[in-house]
Amino acid sequence: MAKKVVVVGAVAAGPKAAVRVKRLDPDAEVLLIDEDSLISYGGCGIPYYVSGDVPDEKDLRSTNFHMLRDEYFFEKAKGVSTLTSTRVTAIDRLKKSVSIEHAATGEIQEISYDKLMLATGSEPIVPPLPGLDLDGVFTVNNLHKAIEIKDRIAKGQVSKAVIVGGGAIGIEMAEAFKDLWGIDATIVELKTHLLPSLVDWEMADILTKHLRDSGLEVYLEEAALEVLGDEKGRVRGVRTDKREIDGDMVIVAVGVRPRSILAQEAGLHVSRGGAIVVNERMQTSDPDIYAAGDCVEITNLVSGQKFFAPLGSLANKQGRVAGDNICGVPSIFKGGVGSFIMKGFEMSIGSAGLTLEAAREAGFDADISLTSPIDRAHFYPTQAVTCFLMVFDRRTRRVLGLQGVGPMGDGILARINGAAPLLCDGAFIEDFNNIEMAYSPPFSAAIDSINAAAYVAENLCDNRMRKVDMSDFFSYMDSPAQHPDWIMLDVRHPKQAAPFVEKFGPDRWLSLPYDEVRDRYQELPQDKTMVIICNAGSRSYEIQRFLDHHGYSNNTVLAGGINVVKRMNVDWLPST
Amino acid sequence: MAKKVVVVGAVAAGPKAAVRVKRLDPDAEVLLIDEDSLISYGGCGIPYYVSGDVPDEKDLRSTNFHMLRDEYFFEKAKGVSTLTSTRVTAIDRLKKSVSIEHAATGEIQEISYDKLMLATGSEPIVPPLPGLDLDGVFTVNNLHKAIEIKDRIAKGQVSKAVIVGGGAIGIEMAEAFKDLWGIDATIVELKTHLLPSLVDWEMADILTKHLRDSGLEVYLEEAALEVLGDEKGRVRGVRTDKREIDGDMVIVAVGVRPRSILAQEAGLHVSRGGAIVVNERMQTSDPDIYAAGDCVEITNLVSGQKFFAPLGSLANKQGRVAGDNICGVPSIFKGGVGSFIMKGFEMSIGSAGLTLEAAREAGFDADISLTSPIDRAHFYPTQAVTCFLMVFDRRTRRVLGLQGVGPMGDGILARINGAAPLLCDGAFIEDFNNIEMAYSPPFSAAIDSINAAAYVAENLCDNRMRKVDMSDFFSYMDSPAQHPDWIMLDVRHPKQAAPFVEKFGPDRWLSLPYDEVRDRYQELPQDKTMVIICNAGSRSYEIQRFLDHHGYSNNTVLAGGINVVKRMNVDWLPST
Repeated sequence: MAKKVVVVGAVAAGPKAAVRVKRLDPDAEVLLIDEDSLISYGGCGIPYYVSGDVPDEKDLRSTNFHMLRDEYFFEKAKGVSTLTSTRVTAIDRLKKSVSIEHAATGEIQEISYDKLMLATGSEPIVPPLPGLDLDGVFTVNNLHKAIEIKDRIAKGQVSKAVIVGGGAIGIEMAEAFKDLWGIDATIVELKTHLLPSLVDWEMADILTKHLRDSGLEVYLEEAALEVLGDEKGRVRGVRTDKREIDGDMVIVAVGVRPRSILAQEAGLHVSRGGAIVVNERMQTSDPDIYAAGDCVEITNLVSGQKFFAPLGSLANKQGRVAGDNICGVPSIFKGGVGSFIMKGFEMSIGSAGLTLEAAREAGFDADISLTSPIDRAHFYPTQAVTCFLMVFDRRTRRVLGLQGVGPMGDGILARINGAAPLLCDGAFIEDFNNIEMAYSPPFSAAIDSINAAAYVAENLCDNRMRKVDMSDFFSYMDSPAQHPDWIMLDVRHPKQAAPFVEKFGPDRWLSLPYDEVRDRYQELPQDKTMVIICNAGSRSYEIQRFLDHHGYSNNTVLAGGINVVKRMNVDWLPST
Repeated sequence: MAKKVVVVGAVAAGPKAAVRVKRLDPDAEVLLIDEDSLISYGGCGIPYYVSGDVPDEKDLRSTNFHMLRDEYFFEKAKGVSTLTSTRVTAIDRLKKSVSIEHAATGEIQEISYDKLMLATGSEPIVPPLPGLDLDGVFTVNNLHKAIEIKDRIAKGQVSKAVIVGGGAIGIEMAEAFKDLWGIDATIVELKTHLLPSLVDWEMADILTKHLRDSGLEVYLEEAALEVLGDEKGRVRGVRTDKREIDGDMVIVAVGVRPRSILAQEAGLHVSRGGAIVVNERMQTSDPDIYAAGDCVEITNLVSGQKFFAPLGSLANKQGRVAGDNICGVPSIFKGGVGSFIMKGFEMSIGSAGLTLEAAREAGFDADISLTSPIDRAHFYPTQAVTCFLMVFDRRTRRVLGLQGVGPMGDGILARINGAAPLLCDGAFIEDFNNIEMAYSPPFSAAIDSINAAAYVAENLCDNRMRKVDMSDFFSYMDSPAQHPDWIMLDVRHPKQAAPFVEKFGPDRWLSLPYDEVRDRYQELPQDKTMVIICNAGSRSYEIQRFLDHHGYSNNTVLAGGINVVKRMNVDWLPST
């Protein structure tokens, strides 16, 4: 008898599992149920639909051969039955059936299954703010809302938007408003930096400066307290703990959480964070029920802990694995490292693995190497500076994460993709030293950015290199009195150093060019801690090693160098 | 006493080792010797210097902070002594000394060492052709020749160039001539396809078409027999086994081989191919002598065999490892997978691991999956078709290689870099299925190209998918009589299929749209082998699975689909 497979949720993991089942076992009767009328869409594309890059919402729910992925498509092309606008209200695990309710008619029906697959996705976290019910306040968790947002923009009803939440979706939405529609947009983020769980502050700060330079307002460490309305019940702004911000549209994008009520009510194991617990075969605690996508938690292959990684790419992979196992093909999904990439105007930012903060929370003896390599051969005309941050464990020398930021394009992606397999594999700094990234002058430097980041990590781990992190350096620049023994030693070309020497005075900022240090090092102060400064940190390291050898052994390197400083939000740079 | 380290060869691996030694052990006396006057240059940048992308040859020998890497630089900035225009003529391993000869004076001198490092590089293979001594015939193995080539171009002395050899350097030089100077350029390649050891013919054929569309002549399976000259001893063309090709400049770029005479004469172990044999610490058979870069052979981490991989990126890594070990830091270089990337006009092509041909030679039960995914979310405006070829072992399911070709940019690089660590690690198809490449619509599809290639490989390995390879398909299209039982089943939109049906007739080319097959499959012929055709191969596979289930079990999928066909050199495509 044909196997009956019921799939709840028809956005990413659900459809993927359904069609995989149908290909593996064309006999199977597969039913795909979703409470929405619009299914199988690219949710990550919503900001690009709002911006107008994607002209029609139908593009988000079409195949790459331009066929709309609707009920007809699943029936005719995939052989999968669908029930849209239909809510699954309960699972009866003993009877192996689900209760469904048709939205239009209120009709209730029971449907039996041999295998059940839950792909119930995530739902937006709604902060407890007064005013969220005002007209013009949106979350961005489904296509209907996206359509309404774009509709209002197209009608000229939006002139100023406030985005509560500086995560990926918040930033992408802000860019969509500003870049293509010229709508003023302000991001309000509670934490100290944007993308708080995805990158460390140095990377986020570079992005923040770029967003500001591109015309967005970004307020950090600022709590939205209330959404403000006018007498007609329309939104007119947001009150934070620091100010009032005008806005005729407010987007609340402070994160998502797993949608797992159905699973919980059926008595399936659910984590404290609300995610459905699955094994590597994507089986829930009931072996006939599978789950995949944003509603589950997976193993973080770096920390070994479970984590919630609501990413469309993972949802698809998990859906396929669930489909395999439903058909008796024993495939597994081991976990992930949270590989992430994002466009922000003319910049791209990405990460994989743990941030420094997350690594320390997970108990690692974590430290970072911050580098600012040129992204291709330095003589190649399109070369540009990029910044990378590698997180590593000083005790075991394992690499725990890599983050990068650079010009828009696939260059940062190429390094994140290069790092992800190694991170999944528990690789060490030495593995990253020699990993063979493809090289040719139009694409990379002979020593790839990944290798260079690992070299610095190794020199730090071996205590050959001593560094001052950007946070300490910035804090010193703001109040030099806290380190009266410090003096900056700028080994760049004298022309580059001169404005700094002039601004900060020779008692705080010394210039001695790289190629003159060997001849003139005896002129350097013996009673100071020199913070050695160059563009990228590598010349500084070389000078530190030389000075160590000549008895000046207390000096440190400004990790990342002026290349990084220039790209961050600082107000003390001399004008050049 | 200070350790004396002598490094022979000052292009890539040599300088890298020398400066690493100096940083690890500032006491060491390091001497860098090269027979050339120009040192430490980016040899891979020569085509970009010739093209004019890099204005000055000094750019190739400068640091990214614009300091010329000459004798002064190594002395003053690095603390490394140099002897340029100086040839090392012999190694006395018992006395631990080298004999050197100064080019200018003929003076001979003996220099002792504690550790010796050989970075003698490679030399061009010179085919036994008459006429190679004519004025205007060049190899591209050092900067002096590049300078002379560019000088002649700048003086207007070159109007037509012939490049003997269709490897990476030959292609890059041809592009340099054509793209930026408008010089007609012809590539003559002996093998059946360009980049013969780096990619399989399908990928090369796509590049070849693009090169031809960009204005280059490319002749394949054609042997250069003689370089022709005029009465003044100047080159006037090349005679091949098929024609005479005019040219006032001839570039011979048929490959390089290790330069190891010095090592051989000193009795060090050298491979049959002439490469210096080293262990994972880059030590030669004499533990006090190290070698790195183009003069050594390394372990191919896919095949387990030794191979010769003359790449600047590997030279630098090996140089650093040699430097470590010279200083007693026990680091190792395990080997490589030959990660490769190249620009060809507006296209990029890359690979890592083994080609199908190399994999079969190495004894694997190798097969390929050919795919043509869209490189970002299909709804994102800048999306484009890319083509990937994954080589895998049917017996063990190990992935042996990945090749890709697509628009110029870092997109192909991102996949080669993602694959390389997995290939180094001996990963299986299943590892590639789930490897977590970063996703966001402007950068990739939710199912990354790497994952998609692995999915197809898995379906092939599991005998769920049957395919016709492009070579068999093309051969059939040229002479249909060899497969009288075949009929094409085009499941694309009828508008796309119509010109094919019209051109080849309904007895050879059937159209039945993807979404109508489930309703109309009984119209299909039972006595034919249907070759199912769509744009990328995925709809075809789905239809094949469906037909299998309904008793039409002899059909196959055109792997890669029309997306690939359209990008190859075929003359039978209907005009649309």
